[in-house]
Amino acid sequence: MDPASDVPSRWTKLGDRSLARTRIFDLKATAYRHPVRGTEREFYVIDAPDWVVVLTVTRDHRLVLVNQFRFGVDAPSLELPGGVIERGEDPVTAGLREVEEETGYRAARARLLGTVHPNPAIQSNRCHLVLAEEAEAVVAQAWDADEEIAVVTTPVEEALAGARSGAITHALSLNALFLFEPLWRTRRGGPGI
Amino acid sequence: MDPASDVPSRWTKLGDRSLARTRIFDLKATAYRHPVRGTEREFYVIDAPDWVVVLTVTRDHRLVLVNQFRFGVDAPSLELPGGVIERGEDPVTAGLREVEEETGYRAARARLLGTVHPNPAIQSNRCHLVLAEEAEAVVAQAWDADEEIAVVTTPVEEALAGARSGAITHALSLNALFLFEPLWRTRRGGPGI
Repeated sequence: MDPASDVPSRWTKLGDRSLARTRIFDLKATAYRHPVRGTEREFYVIDAPDWVVVLTVTRDHRLVLVNQFRFGVDAPSLELPGGVIERGEDPVTAGLREVEEETGYRAARARLLGTVHPNPAIQSNRCHLVLAEEAEAVVAQAWDADEEIAVVTTPVEEALAGARSGAITHALSLNALFLFEPLWRTRRGGPGI
Repeated sequence: MDPASDVPSRWTKLGDRSLARTRIFDLKATAYRHPVRGTEREFYVIDAPDWVVVLTVTRDHRLVLVNQFRFGVDAPSLELPGGVIERGEDPVTAGLREVEEETGYRAARARLLGTVHPNPAIQSNRCHLVLAEEAEAVVAQAWDADEEIAVVTTPVEEALAGARSGAITHALSLNALFLFEPLWRTRRGGPGI
């Protein structure tokens, strides 16, 4: 898999202008010129800080999920905890902070599983996927204003099955499960995947 | 995993106003009232048509990938083919159309693997994940204006490994691989996952 052997042209960025600013992202139009064709066009980019999603496993091998009302889909959504990484914060620290605030669980150890792009076509930011382990419910939830989060724990196998049958539909939560699954299979003494 | 046993409040939608319109999505601010607290606030929603991402397997069991310059991340990105579902089009038809336009491959059969939400917090739309099989390169690529796509085929195992090591970072491409992996393992005579 060597994409470098046949790469598309790199467009030249000419500049951008703001179309809208919100609390959680900015929308801008960026002008580009094609290096060969010479064509110029504006493309739309949603600019947000990097995000973090945390796959949190408890001491008794359950996964910590959150159920909350989501305004994008106008409905409740079952997801892994996560949120926005603050300026200067590293992804693992941010992830542990979000888990603690949203669920009251604190993990004994954590590490980065990987990093994805929520949507390279229209979003500039990345989402870091963190694995937090040996978690225990030790503190009170500390929701942000407008948050209201029901914490659900479930066996890992049940979460994986749910993720494949529509019980969990958040693309970034599913990404964390995808990266975690081979580790889980190997640890459970299976053949790995 | 029964989230219904402990559900968060369903906020009441009061109305919305447009903040920006682009070729590929609209940005709106939607006012909500909390049913118990009585608080009112605006939340931001990116409205786009549903999308489709297609996991395309060739007759010789290779995966069809596309490498293209992506304006969100200002860089090339290796992804599964896909695009916007047109009004009235079903996801499988749209997926086969996008694969053919972007890669020149035509699949003998296809079906829906599942449906995800790219981001329930700030996006209203869904992304359908389609499995297309027995694909062959039979037609010329038919790019949209501004498209320039390098087609790459790779063994499925290599794509899965690449997806877990950062060679593929598009969240929605990774979702299709996540749903496909157990089918692949089962077919290859392995233990499944």
